[in-house]
Amino acid sequence: MAKTKVTLGIDIGGTNTVFGLVTKDGECLHQSGVLTLADKPAGDLFNRLFEKFHTIFDPVKDQYELCGAGIGAPNTNYYTGQIVSPPNFNWKTENLTELLKKYIDLPVAVTNDANAAALGEKMFGNGRGLKNFIEITLGTGLGSGIVVNDEILYGSDGFAGELGHITAIPDGRICGCGKKGCLETYASATGITRTVYELLSESSCKSKLRSVSFADLTSKMIYEMAKDGDEIALKAFDRTAKILGRALADAVAVFSPEAFILFGGLANAGDLLLKPTKKYMEENLLQVFKNKVKILQSGLEASDVAIIGAAALIWNEI
Amino acid sequence: MAKTKVTLGIDIGGTNTVFGLVTKDGECLHQSGVLTLADKPAGDLFNRLFEKFHTIFDPVKDQYELCGAGIGAPNTNYYTGQIVSPPNFNWKTENLTELLKKYIDLPVAVTNDANAAALGEKMFGNGRGLKNFIEITLGTGLGSGIVVNDEILYGSDGFAGELGHITAIPDGRICGCGKKGCLETYASATGITRTVYELLSESSCKSKLRSVSFADLTSKMIYEMAKDGDEIALKAFDRTAKILGRALADAVAVFSPEAFILFGGLANAGDLLLKPTKKYMEENLLQVFKNKVKILQSGLEASDVAIIGAAALIWNEI
Repeated sequence: MAKTKVTLGIDIGGTNTVFGLVTKDGECLHQSGVLTLADKPAGDLFNRLFEKFHTIFDPVKDQYELCGAGIGAPNTNYYTGQIVSPPNFNWKTENLTELLKKYIDLPVAVTNDANAAALGEKMFGNGRGLKNFIEITLGTGLGSGIVVNDEILYGSDGFAGELGHITAIPDGRICGCGKKGCLETYASATGITRTVYELLSESSCKSKLRSVSFADLTSKMIYEMAKDGDEIALKAFDRTAKILGRALADAVAVFSPEAFILFGGLANAGDLLLKPTKKYMEENLLQVFKNKVKILQSGLEASDVAIIGAAALIWNEI
Repeated sequence: MAKTKVTLGIDIGGTNTVFGLVTKDGECLHQSGVLTLADKPAGDLFNRLFEKFHTIFDPVKDQYELCGAGIGAPNTNYYTGQIVSPPNFNWKTENLTELLKKYIDLPVAVTNDANAAALGEKMFGNGRGLKNFIEITLGTGLGSGIVVNDEILYGSDGFAGELGHITAIPDGRICGCGKKGCLETYASATGITRTVYELLSESSCKSKLRSVSFADLTSKMIYEMAKDGDEIALKAFDRTAKILGRALADAVAVFSPEAFILFGGLANAGDLLLKPTKKYMEENLLQVFKNKVKILQSGLEASDVAIIGAAALIWNEI
């Protein structure tokens, strides 16, 4: 029986590291994971990761031909294979491709999570057939993977594509990166909770959100309350969309993409976010770009996308 | 005797149209020009242009092998060859490559003036050897030509690279494009004159600029007065640099270029603009990009760059 060709996709997050085997059609098989335990050295994670991998893979390895392994992780550099001082990790600069080679003697590659998502989207999701598009991941922060002429934009040093850290509001909200007014301080799951508190401070209208503490507030709760017609929650989506829409219009002026594809927790709000974002983007577009650029939701399963994207790194190369 | 290979570079401006023969080393020969007369049809310009071209070229044509012709002009599309409703022209959409083909049966290409400048810089100026850089032209407006992986970024429809129309200040100055707060309303020859008037309205300090009307004020005068120590003129450069520097930092986060290359009237202010722009850019860079990105002045002759850039379109293809 012919073996099924698969690549191993690994997504290293601050809390969990997940992995799975991905076929060339983008199917994710034997998905599993381990705790990242980011306060311990990288080698510790890799030991536990590959112990678990072999537990799962060895019994079925006759069915598969493993062709390589890709990693998606924060602050990684595609060119060098390094992860550089990732926030919330007790790691300094680690060469992840070299580390990975110790466990798996096959083609390996790393990239940041948003680039991996863009690549997964391009090969298996709503980016299929698009030569120029921008994947926006709206999670705790805002990540972006930018596809120019069918290729991920890495720039001169491998760290390009940080739309989350363009200045949305000069001298605005303090960002985790040390700058002020970065787009992700407004347009992200964390950003919208900050916006709710801004709105609560500005007005005195009634809102169920007045009884939720900042620490307890999630973007999902804001979404639920917006669906129930809560005025503050609705305004929070509108204000988020206004800032995101304007930033997307700026990205259009620079990149002229065919589409934006939104992914992640906040993007799950669907039309509540997408419709006003589209409206504000159109308002801010140069005439020549009006009514040309789509805003789509991701076509990938949320639970798989990080793994599929990481695995796509290898599918893209072979 | 072997003929010298040349390409014809044509730059169509709002007032003047200039042309010349450009060698593969970037030397510009037999430069000349005609009035654009933008209120008349495009065909009228081309008739007069090629009449003059033949007057100059025909007597010396035995010395040259003409290999093609490139045009740099505002609002042009590299993919379609069209110029689309250029501001200050009484033209609608014209297909410039088709028009050009009537006069010269050789390879032809068009692009906007900033892309042409970037290409000229890449082949013959300070962009030589750079795979990723951004050319910024600081004239009446702010144009940009973005080089990604050795190629001009055209995007999905050929109009990418409009850094001049990203939002520098939300709800800021009214721009000629119909939007508000565009970068070019602050960082351009026109932008700095607006800033002078803003500063004159804000403070009551003495300045020779108080005796110049808005209509008479030029960026060169502001430069001369800044060199003389005029407080308002110096502050105008600082404020311009602050907004430009922050915008360049945003462009770094997205593109990770090796350098910016500044060209045009305002860039001639040299260190008066470049030093504070560099300072403000560094202040706004993500940690990973600090002290990596150069800001250079153009390495091309100001009088030739538009022609050389347009001609480089063909040199780049053959």
